[in-house]
Amino acid sequence: MTSNPVALAQELIRCPSVTPADAGALDVLAGELRSRGFTVELLTFGEAPDGPIRNLFARRGDSGPHFAFAGHTDVVPVGDVAAWSLDPFAAEIRNGQLVGRGAADMKGAIAAFVAAIDRAGPLPGSLSLVITGDEEGPATFGTTKLLDWMEANGHVPDACLVGEPTSAQRLGDMVKVGRRGSVNAWITVNGAQGHVAYPARADNPITRLVRILADLKGRLLDEGSDWFDASNLEITDVTVGNPATNVIPAQARARINIRFNDLHRGSELEAWIRETVAAHAPANEVEVKISGESFLTEPGDFSAVIVEAIEAVTGVTPELSTSGGTSDARFIRRLCPVVEFGLPGQSMHKVDEVVAVDDLERLTDIYAELLRRWFASR
Amino acid sequence: MTSNPVALAQELIRCPSVTPADAGALDVLAGELRSRGFTVELLTFGEAPDGPIRNLFARRGDSGPHFAFAGHTDVVPVGDVAAWSLDPFAAEIRNGQLVGRGAADMKGAIAAFVAAIDRAGPLPGSLSLVITGDEEGPATFGTTKLLDWMEANGHVPDACLVGEPTSAQRLGDMVKVGRRGSVNAWITVNGAQGHVAYPARADNPITRLVRILADLKGRLLDEGSDWFDASNLEITDVTVGNPATNVIPAQARARINIRFNDLHRGSELEAWIRETVAAHAPANEVEVKISGESFLTEPGDFSAVIVEAIEAVTGVTPELSTSGGTSDARFIRRLCPVVEFGLPGQSMHKVDEVVAVDDLERLTDIYAELLRRWFASR
Repeated sequence: MTSNPVALAQELIRCPSVTPADAGALDVLAGELRSRGFTVELLTFGEAPDGPIRNLFARRGDSGPHFAFAGHTDVVPVGDVAAWSLDPFAAEIRNGQLVGRGAADMKGAIAAFVAAIDRAGPLPGSLSLVITGDEEGPATFGTTKLLDWMEANGHVPDACLVGEPTSAQRLGDMVKVGRRGSVNAWITVNGAQGHVAYPARADNPITRLVRILADLKGRLLDEGSDWFDASNLEITDVTVGNPATNVIPAQARARINIRFNDLHRGSELEAWIRETVAAHAPANEVEVKISGESFLTEPGDFSAVIVEAIEAVTGVTPELSTSGGTSDARFIRRLCPVVEFGLPGQSMHKVDEVVAVDDLERLTDIYAELLRRWFASR
Repeated sequence: MTSNPVALAQELIRCPSVTPADAGALDVLAGELRSRGFTVELLTFGEAPDGPIRNLFARRGDSGPHFAFAGHTDVVPVGDVAAWSLDPFAAEIRNGQLVGRGAADMKGAIAAFVAAIDRAGPLPGSLSLVITGDEEGPATFGTTKLLDWMEANGHVPDACLVGEPTSAQRLGDMVKVGRRGSVNAWITVNGAQGHVAYPARADNPITRLVRILADLKGRLLDEGSDWFDASNLEITDVTVGNPATNVIPAQARARINIRFNDLHRGSELEAWIRETVAAHAPANEVEVKISGESFLTEPGDFSAVIVEAIEAVTGVTPELSTSGGTSDARFIRRLCPVVEFGLPGQSMHKVDEVVAVDDLERLTDIYAELLRRWFASR
């Protein structure tokens, strides 16, 4: 048992828990939590190919109010290991910075959760940790399954903080109170192959695909809303793969992604994509996957407590933002208000991922301050 | 020596002369021509990778007027040999049809050239055959080099007939008096990679490529001219190849082809493509290759003789057309008036390529009639 967030972060980083591997990371965490009086459940969900996945739910106390920390112990691959200046799983400290895969995203924050529990002192009610091993992967057998299990077993919290690395330039400058939704669509346009010298005998699918993509990209989805940036569509791939200069190909494919705010629903965007594609040819095919709807935890009491805790420790007033990618908070919102706050994220997913030792200490202080203030406010 | 075009076509088909291989085809032809009093030059041009290529120039007579037949003994690959109902190089006759690779394109016509010489009887002036082994390939060391050699050695003809399979539905229904030009362009748009959730930090090259392609495809090049269909642009490939749904890629590529008539020049179209692409970003790259300019042998005395010969043998009045792909006639035009006429081409480049034995006999009659009428008209 250690109350030192840096030592615990090092111990976690030394478990090479690249999704879907656990590599002992959750056992390290379970041991720390049990020694602090938590009841720990290690829950394995799913089967191949996306599973099985190990997850952890731990709770101390059985009355309300009930506060939860959420996060993940899995990490993204190291990429080109030769490009790292230190072993990505050695967790060495150099010039005041802890280097390693997961240092920022987000083993550092998980270590800070645990150390903050010690620093916060006695708290009324219940405290939980909701930790998945599948946030960086398909997320099929991670947080959503954990939430189902929590609901079925009477563990619904009153509020939840996700420890994702939300800070931008410096610790405390950004809190995420919501996230945009995301939808991917795979578009296949079927034509008729032929010789380029006889276009009337062929039907070039690329011509229609270009028109479809121009139409899709041409729509102004919105100009943003109270808490969100404008929704945005990007064409992320186009593939024909026709090597012959004198051949009109039979098929052309593209993929788009839309990041959308609270002015849209995934189903409405799906219908619009399908209509736009169909307008250019009935034989076209569209596959749509809604990764998540947009959500917003309307700024109020909960976010105010977080802002006060950050200001008390760092003197920085955070921006309440809804920018960036998706996170597991999009699932947790169905149980309770959820806000995200954690370390600076500049180095996440890159080589030489780092966290400043000083930031890890101050993040622990912020989480401890948050716990004291949140329970006091209930 | 045989005056039977069918037997000679069979002998040529049995040489598997898939470009750049000759497989003895030109030796067969050389023997037939020498036995008819021709002086034959077997000319090998070029080196790897596009060469060496064997070619043939044969001439009988040294005075004017000078008429030339032109064509090629190389053939395209058989493709899926299992899909053929007969061995593609066995040259078997089934139900009155000679089956084999090159039967229509264009060993049948070369056999008809030779047999027609016998049937035409004595002719004044000179008669030549200009035969390449590289029409279906890069055409670098074929007809263009032969033409250089002919110019340098005093063998410039007064008129030339290329025996490509120009007939459409039935023998004699179409003569080609010109061809459209062709230009290919490879377009590369360079952007900046990034996460799809942060589009402001990236620069999506696909967005710009779609606009470029819409602009290129959006221009009406022309509405056709006296002897030509409208020029036409096709997008023949688009390739990004980005597997990640959450990534904006760094680069996007496309290829276009324009078949253009006598209202355009390749250089003018190249300039337009470059301007259009550059208008959307200076960092874009364009590679342009002009495969051939458009050309027209203005219908007149020469085409009239061909039409009369066709009408005399078949009763069909041919359409004078400039449609379809390119041929070696685009090179020959710089030496003399050139017109193309040959077998029905429906089966060319396909499995079970065929020529009707009866068509081969009548084509021989047409070529013989053409020789008599052309020399008589001089």
